[in-house]
Amino acid sequence: MDESTSTAPTLGVTIGDPAGIGPEISVACAAMAQLRRQARLVLYGDASIVARAVSVLGLDARVRTLDDPRQASDDPHVIDVADIGVVADAADIAFGAVQEQAGRAAVRAIEAAVSDAMAGRIDGIVTAPINKEAIWATGTTFLGHTEMLQALTGAPFTDTMFVVDQLCVFFATRHMSLAQAVASIKQDLLVGSITRALKALTVFATPHPRLAVAALNPHGGEGGHFGREEIDEIAPAIAAVNASTGAHVLGPIPADSVFHQGLQGAYDGIVSLYHDQGHIATKTYDFDGTVSVTTGLPILRTSVDHGTAFDIAGRGTASPATMVSAIRAGIRFSAAKERIAEAYPHT
Amino acid sequence: MDESTSTAPTLGVTIGDPAGIGPEISVACAAMAQLRRQARLVLYGDASIVARAVSVLGLDARVRTLDDPRQASDDPHVIDVADIGVVADAADIAFGAVQEQAGRAAVRAIEAAVSDAMAGRIDGIVTAPINKEAIWATGTTFLGHTEMLQALTGAPFTDTMFVVDQLCVFFATRHMSLAQAVASIKQDLLVGSITRALKALTVFATPHPRLAVAALNPHGGEGGHFGREEIDEIAPAIAAVNASTGAHVLGPIPADSVFHQGLQGAYDGIVSLYHDQGHIATKTYDFDGTVSVTTGLPILRTSVDHGTAFDIAGRGTASPATMVSAIRAGIRFSAAKERIAEAYPHT
Repeated sequence: MDESTSTAPTLGVTIGDPAGIGPEISVACAAMAQLRRQARLVLYGDASIVARAVSVLGLDARVRTLDDPRQASDDPHVIDVADIGVVADAADIAFGAVQEQAGRAAVRAIEAAVSDAMAGRIDGIVTAPINKEAIWATGTTFLGHTEMLQALTGAPFTDTMFVVDQLCVFFATRHMSLAQAVASIKQDLLVGSITRALKALTVFATPHPRLAVAALNPHGGEGGHFGREEIDEIAPAIAAVNASTGAHVLGPIPADSVFHQGLQGAYDGIVSLYHDQGHIATKTYDFDGTVSVTTGLPILRTSVDHGTAFDIAGRGTASPATMVSAIRAGIRFSAAKERIAEAYPHT
Repeated sequence: MDESTSTAPTLGVTIGDPAGIGPEISVACAAMAQLRRQARLVLYGDASIVARAVSVLGLDARVRTLDDPRQASDDPHVIDVADIGVVADAADIAFGAVQEQAGRAAVRAIEAAVSDAMAGRIDGIVTAPINKEAIWATGTTFLGHTEMLQALTGAPFTDTMFVVDQLCVFFATRHMSLAQAVASIKQDLLVGSITRALKALTVFATPHPRLAVAALNPHGGEGGHFGREEIDEIAPAIAAVNASTGAHVLGPIPADSVFHQGLQGAYDGIVSLYHDQGHIATKTYDFDGTVSVTTGLPILRTSVDHGTAFDIAGRGTASPATMVSAIRAGIRFSAAKERIAEAYPHT
């Protein structure tokens, strides 16, 4: 065990729905020597499912069940598993189908990883995709991953932060129609979004964050000719936050410039006003390099932003590229673990 | 003169507002041996202004006035100018200010280049930025470049096509508020946009274009949960175009995937539904490599998409990178010159 490993963080990787690509992309990452030098990786899921993924990928690696994640190895030929004991025989789970048992395994892996993270046995969690219908089949009423993590940790709120290169992207609105998002761009909502983005940057990235807010309309509204939200809502919200916090948040800046400028290093973070604004920017720039981080939880959680890809699960053809990025983000932000726990207390 | 030059296209570069960065970025390109091997470049503007730009850049190059653009050289030390005779003494034009004479020079350069392009003396035009207030000071009522080009060529309509890498991006709506753009996404408008995009791809790029249409709402509306435009307007418009033309236009495809897919080579073109959708995608992906092409004109016209940058004009610090991309696009599309003239007849 070399020196870098001895100080490396331990990340819990939940393998997601066992019928999807989660297990194979998780195992592919655990078998990468380069990642294992930077982090101890423990897969949360059934050992049987992990063993099947090793076989799907044709890897020369041994699956080892750990009682304590702190025993994790740095050997890429040893795949360390925190076995959840839901699926004894992998043959019981068909690839590419919604199954109640698969949903139970997905949920149990998240519960186990959160429990270890809350107890400080791991430094953060990285989540592979789950299938919503499968978890709903188990009787859970959580809408998805984030709501489950929020309940398990007792967090009063969460936000999604995208990370690509050194840039963090926040969302003032997300899962609603574009018409509804436009109608939601009001000063009060933006003050909240900008304030939380500033806090997240302080916790995750830098003590003196440079934050910019994207404009809503073409050319930033061109002085009110193409929409008045910049004048009536966005600029006043930025001014209010700056006045009350002493921050120097910039904007609104036309959206076809602000993400380019941010990726060139001009800002640490950008508040996007609607789902696709931040998504188009980050994913067109670097589809595989865009990672989702959940802020507001008292623990570190990074995630891929893609789904279970049931259509190609079990073939060993799924690209682990985004999972690699999510693990790298986990490694980067594990240094902020204490700040995260302190900044986002739970009930 | 080597063989490649003898078959190289001749492009007319209008140097734009002489008080802006247009002259210096145009001259910088004309002094690039690599570009001059691929195209004969003739600058349309005042010889006095071109000479000042040569001096601003500290170039070892001679300014030569041509009577006929077909006499253009391939020597990067010779800057060929189609002199417009508006500004005799460059000292009369201050950098960074709106001036009537500068507006007149910008307009006259465009008129001269269009006239030569219509007469077949040049293979296309590449335009540097103009200042709208300056051209309005001359008494012209054209809103901008495109409207002027349309009037000068007698084109019944024009569209803007962005080009980045091998991908062409079209716009169903442009200069209006996002709220108004959302309200404009109706089947009739989309049928027109998609049909014109198909035609433009056929003219500029490939006889059997692969075209996709971006979705409006997050996740493409997720089955109507996040907006119904995909179901009620966009899908029917695509189906109508495919039924009437036999094309295989795809979509609506979620906007955070479709541009990535297009840039990976899956499509030749994408119809974006609002200004920022296509702008964020292309400019975040490659700010300097995104070029604007005007379709609908009977002549080839490519352009930078940035402004006159009055704040840095005359310093020799402006990046010519986007102008290089615009000239490269001009070279690429000059092969389509005959198809353009045939496809877009003028009155």
